[in-house]
Amino acid sequence: MTPPKNPKPRPKVTPASFLDSLPFDRRLWRQDIAGSVAWARMLARQGIVSDKEAELIVMGLAAIREELDYGPFNLTGEDIHMAIEARLAQKIGEVAGKLHTGRSRNDQVALDLRLYVKETIGEAQGAIKGLQEALLGLAERHQSTALPGYTHLQRAQPVLLAHHLLAYFEMLERDRERFADGLKRADVLPLGSGALAGVPYPIDRDFLARELGFSQISTNSMDAVSDRDFVVEFLAASAMAMAHLSRLAEDIILWSSTEFGFVELGADYATGSSIMPQKRNPDAAELVRGKAGRVFGHLVGLLATLKGLPLTYNKDLQEDKEALFDAADTLLACLEISAGLVATLKVKEEAMARATQGGYLLATELADYLVGKGVPFRQAHGIVARLVAYAQGQGKELGELSLEEYRRFSPHFGEDARQISVASALAARRSVGGTAPERVAAALAAARRRLEGSG
Amino acid sequence: MTPPKNPKPRPKVTPASFLDSLPFDRRLWRQDIAGSVAWARMLARQGIVSDKEAELIVMGLAAIREELDYGPFNLTGEDIHMAIEARLAQKIGEVAGKLHTGRSRNDQVALDLRLYVKETIGEAQGAIKGLQEALLGLAERHQSTALPGYTHLQRAQPVLLAHHLLAYFEMLERDRERFADGLKRADVLPLGSGALAGVPYPIDRDFLARELGFSQISTNSMDAVSDRDFVVEFLAASAMAMAHLSRLAEDIILWSSTEFGFVELGADYATGSSIMPQKRNPDAAELVRGKAGRVFGHLVGLLATLKGLPLTYNKDLQEDKEALFDAADTLLACLEISAGLVATLKVKEEAMARATQGGYLLATELADYLVGKGVPFRQAHGIVARLVAYAQGQGKELGELSLEEYRRFSPHFGEDARQISVASALAARRSVGGTAPERVAAALAAARRRLEGSG
Amino acid sequence: MTPPKNPKPRPKVTPASFLDSLPFDRRLWRQDIAGSVAWARMLARQGIVSDKEAELIVMGLAAIREELDYGPFNLTGEDIHMAIEARLAQKIGEVAGKLHTGRSRNDQVALDLRLYVKETIGEAQGAIKGLQEALLGLAERHQSTALPGYTHLQRAQPVLLAHHLLAYFEMLERDRERFADGLKRADVLPLGSGALAGVPYPIDRDFLARELGFSQISTNSMDAVSDRDFVVEFLAASAMAMAHLSRLAEDIILWSSTEFGFVELGADYATGSSIMPQKRNPDAAELVRGKAGRVFGHLVGLLATLKGLPLTYNKDLQEDKEALFDAADTLLACLEISAGLVATLKVKEEAMARATQGGYLLATELADYLVGKGVPFRQAHGIVARLVAYAQGQGKELGELSLEEYRRFSPHFGEDARQISVASALAARRSVGGTAPERVAAALAAARRRLEGSG
Amino acid sequence: MTPPKNPKPRPKVTPASFLDSLPFDRRLWRQDIAGSVAWARMLARQGIVSDKEAELIVMGLAAIREELDYGPFNLTGEDIHMAIEARLAQKIGEVAGKLHTGRSRNDQVALDLRLYVKETIGEAQGAIKGLQEALLGLAERHQSTALPGYTHLQRAQPVLLAHHLLAYFEMLERDRERFADGLKRADVLPLGSGALAGVPYPIDRDFLARELGFSQISTNSMDAVSDRDFVVEFLAASAMAMAHLSRLAEDIILWSSTEFGFVELGADYATGSSIMPQKRNPDAAELVRGKAGRVFGHLVGLLATLKGLPLTYNKDLQEDKEALFDAADTLLACLEISAGLVATLKVKEEAMARATQGGYLLATELADYLVGKGVPFRQAHGIVARLVAYAQGQGKELGELSLEEYRRFSPHFGEDARQISVASALAARRSVGGTAPERVAAALAAARRRLEGSG
Repeated sequence: MTPPKNPKPRPKVTPASFLDSLPFDRRLWRQDIAGSVAWARMLARQGIVSDKEAELIVMGLAAIREELDYGPFNLTGEDIHMAIEARLAQKIGEVAGKLHTGRSRNDQVALDLRLYVKETIGEAQGAIKGLQEALLGLAERHQSTALPGYTHLQRAQPVLLAHHLLAYFEMLERDRERFADGLKRADVLPLGSGALAGVPYPIDRDFLARELGFSQISTNSMDAVSDRDFVVEFLAASAMAMAHLSRLAEDIILWSSTEFGFVELGADYATGSSIMPQKRNPDAAELVRGKAGRVFGHLVGLLATLKGLPLTYNKDLQEDKEALFDAADTLLACLEISAGLVATLKVKEEAMARATQGGYLLATELADYLVGKGVPFRQAHGIVARLVAYAQGQGKELGELSLEEYRRFSPHFGEDARQISVASALAARRSVGGTAPERVAAALAAARRRLEGSG
Repeated sequence: MTPPKNPKPRPKVTPASFLDSLPFDRRLWRQDIAGSVAWARMLARQGIVSDKEAELIVMGLAAIREELDYGPFNLTGEDIHMAIEARLAQKIGEVAGKLHTGRSRNDQVALDLRLYVKETIGEAQGAIKGLQEALLGLAERHQSTALPGYTHLQRAQPVLLAHHLLAYFEMLERDRERFADGLKRADVLPLGSGALAGVPYPIDRDFLARELGFSQISTNSMDAVSDRDFVVEFLAASAMAMAHLSRLAEDIILWSSTEFGFVELGADYATGSSIMPQKRNPDAAELVRGKAGRVFGHLVGLLATLKGLPLTYNKDLQEDKEALFDAADTLLACLEISAGLVATLKVKEEAMARATQGGYLLATELADYLVGKGVPFRQAHGIVARLVAYAQGQGKELGELSLEEYRRFSPHFGEDARQISVASALAARRSVGGTAPERVAAALAAARRRLEGSG
Repeated sequence: MTPPKNPKPRPKVTPASFLDSLPFDRRLWRQDIAGSVAWARMLARQGIVSDKEAELIVMGLAAIREELDYGPFNLTGEDIHMAIEARLAQKIGEVAGKLHTGRSRNDQVALDLRLYVKETIGEAQGAIKGLQEALLGLAERHQSTALPGYTHLQRAQPVLLAHHLLAYFEMLERDRERFADGLKRADVLPLGSGALAGVPYPIDRDFLARELGFSQISTNSMDAVSDRDFVVEFLAASAMAMAHLSRLAEDIILWSSTEFGFVELGADYATGSSIMPQKRNPDAAELVRGKAGRVFGHLVGLLATLKGLPLTYNKDLQEDKEALFDAADTLLACLEISAGLVATLKVKEEAMARATQGGYLLATELADYLVGKGVPFRQAHGIVARLVAYAQGQGKELGELSLEEYRRFSPHFGEDARQISVASALAARRSVGGTAPERVAAALAAARRRLEGSG
Repeated sequence: MTPPKNPKPRPKVTPASFLDSLPFDRRLWRQDIAGSVAWARMLARQGIVSDKEAELIVMGLAAIREELDYGPFNLTGEDIHMAIEARLAQKIGEVAGKLHTGRSRNDQVALDLRLYVKETIGEAQGAIKGLQEALLGLAERHQSTALPGYTHLQRAQPVLLAHHLLAYFEMLERDRERFADGLKRADVLPLGSGALAGVPYPIDRDFLARELGFSQISTNSMDAVSDRDFVVEFLAASAMAMAHLSRLAEDIILWSSTEFGFVELGADYATGSSIMPQKRNPDAAELVRGKAGRVFGHLVGLLATLKGLPLTYNKDLQEDKEALFDAADTLLACLEISAGLVATLKVKEEAMARATQGGYLLATELADYLVGKGVPFRQAHGIVARLVAYAQGQGKELGELSLEEYRRFSPHFGEDARQISVASALAARRSVGGTAPERVAAALAAARRRLEGSG
């Protein structure tokens, strides 16, 4: 039997299938049911439907929730809202048709999406803390390990590994704050805005807000149904966080190269090659780095989609969901994976220590030494630059030069200049935020408190 | 039974699941098998494996193809390459292990992706032609229908509807060319590049190219395994095409508003409202417009992913696939839907004609009339601007002014100035590319030829 | 004399000119001097330089500030930091070389940029308020003007113009909050972080923070010199605001078309055509809409630049400035122009009123009427949909049908159904956030309070 | 005298200044004059203006060109078109007003921009060749230098440096082709399309095309005035090229780190530090890498700007220019700088050679050896993986193991397995596109021919 040339062609798109959002908005079923339950209760409280009708609707919705909790997703319809209402009608008959009284899909979908974003922000903050915990744990385990600090990927000055890791802790702390700020603007109930103009029934939006856990209600119905700022803001915070993760990934990739040799990846995070038996590839870190681009794309894609839309709701807004879902999944996965990567990293302290010995890492120290002797900084900088050039020409590190050689460049050099070491350089950087061991110890303690305090 | 609070949590990500690409690269199973069949045949031809071994491998692969053609997708593995090889081993045993001789996943995935892009370019070109056909058909059915041409969304000069539609035909023609140009660079066989450095077996890459339908073979193995230009180029061509579709969608949305009232959407392309019974929303057009943002996002996302990657293959490159697949699906669906939208558009010729009567659409005509009488264009423009302002003040269209009123602004106006009409204005624009009926008729004929010739 | 073929070629790029940032970072001269003054004072307070030296440095810097305040920009150097230090050396000699003691360009540029962002956020918030004021003013002047509210650019339900305008007020309110949130993270002093590792002098960073008006100091030196989150966050807030402005621009462009005819642009905001004398183009609104893309581009461009950078400072970060400056200029200009556009908009109330009479704008009202008679909403919706279809078939608006015709579709229709009017529909939408006149009046008052309170 | 608090505020934006494009479109003065000269000649040829008038106009334009060629730019006006026409009127009086006969700024600006893009494509292709030349030159000077080839930044297999450099040569070759393809679509004359509908004068567009060096003329006037595809396509080709340059920059940055130590930057391309005297930072390479983001941003920004614009010309299109100019400047500068970087790179051959000895670079070789002995590839791969793990455990490289140790893992190993060397591994990769010295020599020769042939 010859296989047909193209037995599984790209499925024919129809106008209906093109508009169909159920394949992706089905993820919102739980939010949609929660919103409908609150709406039905409110309708009854306000006498818009009878208590009995509301009870029937709420029971029907609870039954659907249970079906979906424990069974496969078997609803059909053009979107999750219609699919659930249709299932409700199968269960409780015509009274299902009363649920949509005073409500529009425009405010309904805005509600569902806000509930989703609120929950996801919580998850993101938890996952960020997970990575912070991993970084902090690694830092605490290596409080006295030094390595070269880099600028321009050139060895610059020695730093403590814990100090380096805490830089990422700080970035993530800002990410958490940024999500918290976005939450304020997501935490606004849109339900009760109708299609665009408000609702002609005596609804109680404060009750809805309480039921659904919103701290505010929207104040303009036209804005409420066309606002997707909270999605863009979630994407922007995610993009920023992904940029941070990509930087961490880059450091890990560099450190695990043969050339740097500073770390070894945990067994689960190093991958073999299909052809090169010796390879231990940092695939997970590379993928985190690569996925940053994807989230950046979702952000700018949604901004482009929103550009130039007239008020109020336009179907273009349906494009918000897939970008949001994918960005959320990507961010959460990358945070978890990064936490695992960091937690299982094996630090090769000796290799780091060895690296601090090369690359003229203490040159700045020497310039500061001369400043201490009264030489203006710019002059001191010039003197040491010439000294370093001389040492390079001799193929020596600074510590290998004799005092006499030092003094050829400045009479201010004394024997103590040759005592400058990685340890003394580290200890000297005692300014707030600096890498001196005492500072870093305090920073570790503060980070630990922040992490525990932020519950 | 109380439903559990969160019975279907976001699945726990593991290092393995994070790297797993089978959930999306399974789409490449057909390409992967085709590549392996060609590879096995080549290995035998070159004596690297025996004919018998190759036969066994090819038969096994054919059997897998048949399974997948007619059955569910039931392979497992970390990616499509390993999944198929594992299935092959189940079928034919240890000899399956010889298939990967001299091959790496790096050149294998590059091959699969190039095969996919080549096929998809063909589909895209076909779908573009489908939309061109719809535009041309509509234009041919309305050869003498005029409507206002707009600049700045202000009525500017009368044009033929066919002329307006042919503007989109031209954009799409460029899109087809752009895909054709991209095809040249996709149509290069990477297989035989090994992991990065080439292959130490006496392989025959020209044979592979012939078998797999490539017109060229790559000339540098390091480039071949790290090159994703052809994906970026596909995304760029798709983004450009989506920008065109978004403009067409915008015109259709405007035209189907009550205010313009130029067209009525086909029944399948107009959607009702869940709350407003009178609505006939151009949802499909809006969604096409909105989806442009998504494809722009994929383009820039992949560029960001590629940025700054050292040679050669890095795992970041795995991020190419989902963007590509989604962009391709989006583009193809939007082209088809746009074709349907256009083909079923009901043109309201009277409304268009009525609109050409207002908005001082013939003012440029009058300026050109004065130029014909020897007035320098800049002066003529000024005279007519004052005339229009006067008419607006009077609440009249130009045709409603008396000759005397005309002459208050210039003695050059004669009775024939008042004979200027939409028809005469159209007829006058006889320059190549202009909207004169004879030009448009010729353009329609040329478009028809191009469409048929490009088979 | 024959003109040379290419007398003004693109200037030859040299390695030095390529790196040169003075052409754009000169904008930071004021911030740079302020930072240096504070630094010099701190050095003296801490005994790192003598009081006399510091006095000389501060006087020199003051003199440079005065030169730049009143004269042309005549500094030279590879960047603004070196240019000012070089000028200082010309003025005060060798002691200028002491200013850089303990400081690096890495923390210096971070400081300058944070000062710039903080100031610009203030300007942006002021400009946002300016536009809010214009919107609110227009709304207050048209408290009882109704127009069709649109979804999908189809007439949906009548709304008050003031309600429509307040939707934009709300968007802008969120924009202001977003900038305020970003300010918290910009308002952190990086100075005193040294090149990356902290400073080996007994500096006082709290003093610096007080002098320079920062409420916090950075807690990790490596993060401090490589953090550009505050720039990305400014760009993200700007992009969001530009998306809002592009939507407002779109509404204005639509409204000023002949087809809508809802507004007339102020004379300064309508532009003529070089060829069509009758045109009054909404160029300024179009340009605002178009400029949204530019700011989106800057945002994603900077994210891409940051992606995958290892710690700490890398020269790539220099790319932050031009994007930031251009985005800030663009945003501020667009806010001001939008304010002018809105403030000078002439509303054509009659045209708006006329439009509310067509398009079956009251259909939802009728469905709600039936709900009031006990018909479940879904049924009521179906009945009215059929009624509207019938009316369209008859070429009539709903108000033109007889009661008998109404009753063909439902016996629940009574004479009062025919009393439904735009006014009654507006009045009915009394839910919080709805368009009922009393609600809108309250919303206007609240907006006025917010605007005045936020001074 | 106390300096005023803010003596140089951000200049007040006015509606006129906001629309003003002269500050940036002045770059198009040469193109604008060329277009006007051709237009005037054509008008005379066709008898639309007299020969005398045309002569006067052409002389006037020539005089303006000379002024601008040799003097400062002193024109004023809202855009370059009006500025030149105004200057012309000063020079030749009222007859200047005849120049715009039959022309619109819409087709005029499209012309200017196409001329600019065509020229810039030529410059870009030249600059690409310059970088290809630098790469090829370096490769030719190091034909037998080997270094580790990397995947996942892990040492994978040895390659020739020349092979590595030629990978970039290939990328750039595609870039040149891509620009050439874009040129076809830029090389279309739009002039003669009028404002949007064509021209009512007997113009000769073929003559214009010949005069201005276009190979085609546009066939639809509405498309011609609203088409900016050629700009997007230029930006897309530039973005792709920048992605390539960012990868090359990354390699150079890595190679010039202490850890890799493979190259030393030319003196002009290594920068010192303001605080660390020993630093030699690869600033230029970092800046090239960083600037990729900027060009990506311009691309997506313009796409967003174009999204959803109705036909035909809209003022939003004015946003095309600054993005284009900046992308062109950036690309050209980055190409030149990269060429300089590469040309002056000092290769440290010994360091590269040393690196090929470590990292188990020959493991794949060993697996292929076993395949040669009849072991299926998958098994061979497994055997060598275990051998490598053993060697790592022993702290030895493969060459340091005894034959006996080899045979513990497979009896197929013979003494010749221990003869495998970097040289033999390189020599073995003889497949087309592989890194075998003979292949690379042929590839160098072919590259040289291509470079010279493409004149």
